[in-house]
Amino acid sequence: MIFSDPASVAVVGASDDPAKWGHWLARGALAGSSRRAVHLVNHGGGSVLSQPTVRSLSELPSAPELVVLAVPAAHVPAVVDEALAVGVRGFVGITSGIDDRVIGRIRSAGARMLGPNCLGVFDAATSLHLAWGQFQPGSLGVVSQSGQVGLEIAGLAAASGIGVSRFVSVGSQVDVTAAEALLDLVSHDMTTVVGIYLESFGPGIVTAMSELRAAGKPVVLLTVGSSTAAQEAALSHTGALTSPLDVVDAACRRAGAVRVATPAALADLAAVLSSGPPRGARVGVVSDSGGQGAIAADLAVAAGLTVPALSAVDGLPVGVSSRNPIDLAGAGEQDLVNYSRVVEVLVRGGEVDTVVLSGYFGSYGEDTPSLEVSEVAVASRICALARETGVPVVVHSMRPDSAAVRALRAGGVPVQHTIERAVAALGDAARFGALDQRSVGAPTGQELSVLPGRIEAGGPPGGDACVSLPTTAAPYRPGYLAARELLGFVRFPRAHVVTSAAEAKATTLTGPYALKADWLAHKSEHGGVKINVTDPAAAFEEMRARLGPGTYVLEEMDTRENTVELIIGAKRDHSFGPVILVGAGGIHAELFRDTAIELAPVTPATAREMLARLVSAPLLSGWRGAPEPDVTALAQVIAQISETLVARPDLAEIELNPVRVGPDGVLAVDALIIPSGDTLNDTSGRRVA
Amino acid sequence: MIFSDPASVAVVGASDDPAKWGHWLARGALAGSSRRAVHLVNHGGGSVLSQPTVRSLSELPSAPELVVLAVPAAHVPAVVDEALAVGVRGFVGITSGIDDRVIGRIRSAGARMLGPNCLGVFDAATSLHLAWGQFQPGSLGVVSQSGQVGLEIAGLAAASGIGVSRFVSVGSQVDVTAAEALLDLVSHDMTTVVGIYLESFGPGIVTAMSELRAAGKPVVLLTVGSSTAAQEAALSHTGALTSPLDVVDAACRRAGAVRVATPAALADLAAVLSSGPPRGARVGVVSDSGGQGAIAADLAVAAGLTVPALSAVDGLPVGVSSRNPIDLAGAGEQDLVNYSRVVEVLVRGGEVDTVVLSGYFGSYGEDTPSLEVSEVAVASRICALARETGVPVVVHSMRPDSAAVRALRAGGVPVQHTIERAVAALGDAARFGALDQRSVGAPTGQELSVLPGRIEAGGPPGGDACVSLPTTAAPYRPGYLAARELLGFVRFPRAHVVTSAAEAKATTLTGPYALKADWLAHKSEHGGVKINVTDPAAAFEEMRARLGPGTYVLEEMDTRENTVELIIGAKRDHSFGPVILVGAGGIHAELFRDTAIELAPVTPATAREMLARLVSAPLLSGWRGAPEPDVTALAQVIAQISETLVARPDLAEIELNPVRVGPDGVLAVDALIIPSGDTLNDTSGRRVA
Repeated sequence: MIFSDPASVAVVGASDDPAKWGHWLARGALAGSSRRAVHLVNHGGGSVLSQPTVRSLSELPSAPELVVLAVPAAHVPAVVDEALAVGVRGFVGITSGIDDRVIGRIRSAGARMLGPNCLGVFDAATSLHLAWGQFQPGSLGVVSQSGQVGLEIAGLAAASGIGVSRFVSVGSQVDVTAAEALLDLVSHDMTTVVGIYLESFGPGIVTAMSELRAAGKPVVLLTVGSSTAAQEAALSHTGALTSPLDVVDAACRRAGAVRVATPAALADLAAVLSSGPPRGARVGVVSDSGGQGAIAADLAVAAGLTVPALSAVDGLPVGVSSRNPIDLAGAGEQDLVNYSRVVEVLVRGGEVDTVVLSGYFGSYGEDTPSLEVSEVAVASRICALARETGVPVVVHSMRPDSAAVRALRAGGVPVQHTIERAVAALGDAARFGALDQRSVGAPTGQELSVLPGRIEAGGPPGGDACVSLPTTAAPYRPGYLAARELLGFVRFPRAHVVTSAAEAKATTLTGPYALKADWLAHKSEHGGVKINVTDPAAAFEEMRARLGPGTYVLEEMDTRENTVELIIGAKRDHSFGPVILVGAGGIHAELFRDTAIELAPVTPATAREMLARLVSAPLLSGWRGAPEPDVTALAQVIAQISETLVARPDLAEIELNPVRVGPDGVLAVDALIIPSGDTLNDTSGRRVA
Repeated sequence: MIFSDPASVAVVGASDDPAKWGHWLARGALAGSSRRAVHLVNHGGGSVLSQPTVRSLSELPSAPELVVLAVPAAHVPAVVDEALAVGVRGFVGITSGIDDRVIGRIRSAGARMLGPNCLGVFDAATSLHLAWGQFQPGSLGVVSQSGQVGLEIAGLAAASGIGVSRFVSVGSQVDVTAAEALLDLVSHDMTTVVGIYLESFGPGIVTAMSELRAAGKPVVLLTVGSSTAAQEAALSHTGALTSPLDVVDAACRRAGAVRVATPAALADLAAVLSSGPPRGARVGVVSDSGGQGAIAADLAVAAGLTVPALSAVDGLPVGVSSRNPIDLAGAGEQDLVNYSRVVEVLVRGGEVDTVVLSGYFGSYGEDTPSLEVSEVAVASRICALARETGVPVVVHSMRPDSAAVRALRAGGVPVQHTIERAVAALGDAARFGALDQRSVGAPTGQELSVLPGRIEAGGPPGGDACVSLPTTAAPYRPGYLAARELLGFVRFPRAHVVTSAAEAKATTLTGPYALKADWLAHKSEHGGVKINVTDPAAAFEEMRARLGPGTYVLEEMDTRENTVELIIGAKRDHSFGPVILVGAGGIHAELFRDTAIELAPVTPATAREMLARLVSAPLLSGWRGAPEPDVTALAQVIAQISETLVARPDLAEIELNPVRVGPDGVLAVDALIIPSGDTLNDTSGRRVA
């Protein structure tokens, strides 16, 4: 492949000055000269790094396959034109500010460009080092939109012992996209785990992450935006309750990936995952200090892990109880083998999925040199146990570096100098185990819009089938009644149009009533809804006097007891396509933002899983003896709303708010549909207060 | 002082074997031999560390002031008896398992003991090193219940450059307590910041932390228990909603301290605080990578900091905008001085309280040795700016170590290898600024019970006065009506006792009514309350038939609109004395645990601050146009409940649940009082469901 194993490369802008990028790129390129022809181009001629240079690409006997552009932006157009003329097929654009027309010429010529404004590419399997920075060969594939964040990840991966298999700084992605770079890692043998840094998301990212996951390569995504997300004025409560990062998290769940917030969290998690994700969230904590064990256990629980009680286990050193966290007290100091003995009991016992060892281990050989050999032997034994059982072990050592620490890292057991990093990595790793395997890999609305008809095929192989897609052929029309009609699969209260006080008075509906101005999207905010109405004629007169002529709807109030109020909403995300939200309803829920969000469509099974994630989930399973609401029907409605938005590109948003679920089923008490292309500039008063 | 600067010491159990503790203790003691007489005692005689030893303490010409016990527990009684006989006044008990009778003999003789089961003591100001481990002299005073956690803190403090002024491992605290060790740091000049690790809290801890704070020494407390807190079956909702760590946090707020969860968080925060806490939570983020700046900003907001927009500031390098985070892009690489230039603009600008610099700085000299001198100069300039302006600066460098990194640390600017540690320390530091200065240092109920009458004196000097203490001379009697009477300062709905259906029928109260079984503590759980009663006679018949004879109370329902429901509760904490809780009421609040807890008593001002901390606080300031509830009256009730529990040692708990506050004031709809000494073993059915 042109960007991972070119037959020949040329560095244009190669320099002998170590303060220039061209120096480091030339040095990196030359490191691969046993595998490929490496040409250095310097317009001043002479030698660079004791190698001869040419003044221009056309002086070369044949065209290099890949050209690295490390010259000032002003010189780039001429270099590219010359390169294309001699038949160059690939460019790595280090230089920033490359003119769009240049990029157009590259693409028209059928050539490809990585970058520009990138830090380059490194491949450990092919000795390709066309990037700024140092790389420790290893198993983590890194694709980064920011060169420096990518470099930080690579540095941390080197320090943690996992190293880097390939590094692709995609820069401005004017041609080669992050998604392409990711797909290219699917068949890259040396890569066993993938780390990504992205600030924006092209349409192929979920597919690429899914394919990596399917190939058995766990994907860890680092992104930003929790602090800066310009909260756009939302058209609906669904919009107001859905942050961009919520959607990224939903995309990760669908792709089977896990999101982290920092380069260190990415590298630390990758180091744990390089031998495969743990089976669950149960952690065994071992320490030679009760205090350190307690600190680790507290952090573990805060990170979503469980610290289960252990059955009375055999094989522990004398005086060490099988309480979790396990406190070795002086047993480790008495005999270093006790450290690996306890780890062995845990990794073989089947009662925990991961192990963290915290405290003094790793320090003995430094304090007492005569202990170094046996401490290293114990470290190697711990590595062997982790490898053999597949149970990840992470060590927190008070000593940042020692022979034992190095032995652990070399043997695939990550070592951290702070307990928070050790536990955080295990907590993040356990999140892979917590992914709902029924929805991982299921096609997203965005993918389905590219693959028409695929929705009929249902979920992923072995997963749950989607519910049958509701036939909603009715064109979009504004208003509440039209929304009720379009969402024919949802139950609403009985209602009819009223055009006069007399008509209201003569209603055959059962009171109390709600009176609604059909055309208002946000009725409460504009005085367009009155509830608990007992005199419908008077209510009608009052509202019409206030809001003027229009369609008014008289509706029966939902007077059922033991109902739970929720919001169900679907909207299109700019980056990831249709998403579905469910949240607790009412004032408190809005304050507490108790919501669950997934990419649409979802199956009823996934919808149930979303409901179970709500903090207020206990209300849905018979809170304090109340009868259980019909969650099956609720999940069905959530799935159908999600599918409707996928199937209806003419709709931007669908919202049922509130929805009330009781033992006898689901009733939507209001509905809002926003057509695609609708904006806040229209006059329909749809802005959420 | 005997434990910080003894005139002479003896190490009993001194050894030449580096695998024995007596070896390290002897070595440490000898390091102070220029300041004091150091005697080594070894029952076998001979020399240790090339120094002569004696076989027993009685062989010494005069009694050493302080004796370190590093012999097996079986030998301790004889050593102690001999020591007391020759007039030794102080012991450091390293050995674990020292018999209680030995300790009794020490105390009877008027001598003191640190430990036993401790790691010893270190004082940098007096060259006293009677402890296991290495210490870097510095400014952090460490008092730790766990020797090894204390050692970990000391190691991290050394790595971060702050170092340790004094280290006291208090061990089992059979005589010298953590509180005493803390008070002893108030006048210890070398100590400018104090780090504490405790697993349990004696009565003097809040006082000691307060005095350190008053002496200008910030206190950072590390403790555990979030995962293991054995949730005792609670007598009340207040009990169920109050975790031990909530109370520790309340104690920290009262003492003006901040709690952290790990040794690294403690050391990192101490390093930021050593030059004084920041003035607020506004952070300026500087990076040479847009990605790293965004990651730092996200973390900052998650840590409770704000990343404010900056006004267009002068003095920035060309091409660098004053958007926060500030992205230097290539400006730093072009001229290293641009790093300190941007830091200078921020620390002098008055628009931020702290600065974090994230990215490549610290790496230049390593990559390009010719840049080392100028990079170190820039580092020194950054240190000078931080010192001069008092604005804390923390650096995150991709390089764990370099000349520039060392220059920063030496100059008092902490450097972290991961951005999470850098930002977490600033977030924790900002929590000092967020402390409510009106309540910091105010006497706690526990302190007041020791100092009778002091409550009349009101709050701390310059703080708010407590509300006048309600006179609640009535003895405790069980039941709802008695509770109403005892809490005479609280408004309850109109009510009267009913003894017959006829009496219920003849009521002059206004319906709808609530009917309550007076004697049941948890009425709802036992069918002892019926609300929305319109036929009081029928309701009375039904309830009496079910619950049998007893006092029944008929009460007017609170039918006010626009009320907000809350719970107010006070209870006695095992470690910290009376505490006061306020929380959002109702089902959702219970699920979301939206509560605020402080040590009692609180002033109305502090009560308002508690209310403002609730997630549901917006409901108390006129949510969506609703009329504002009477928060002044609500705060008054909270303060009075808190004072009542302080003033009434005969009461264990007081709970108003629910309390409903509207624009016209506060109405308590139920009340529960639990007398001191009441337990779950009684038959009153008080266990919370």
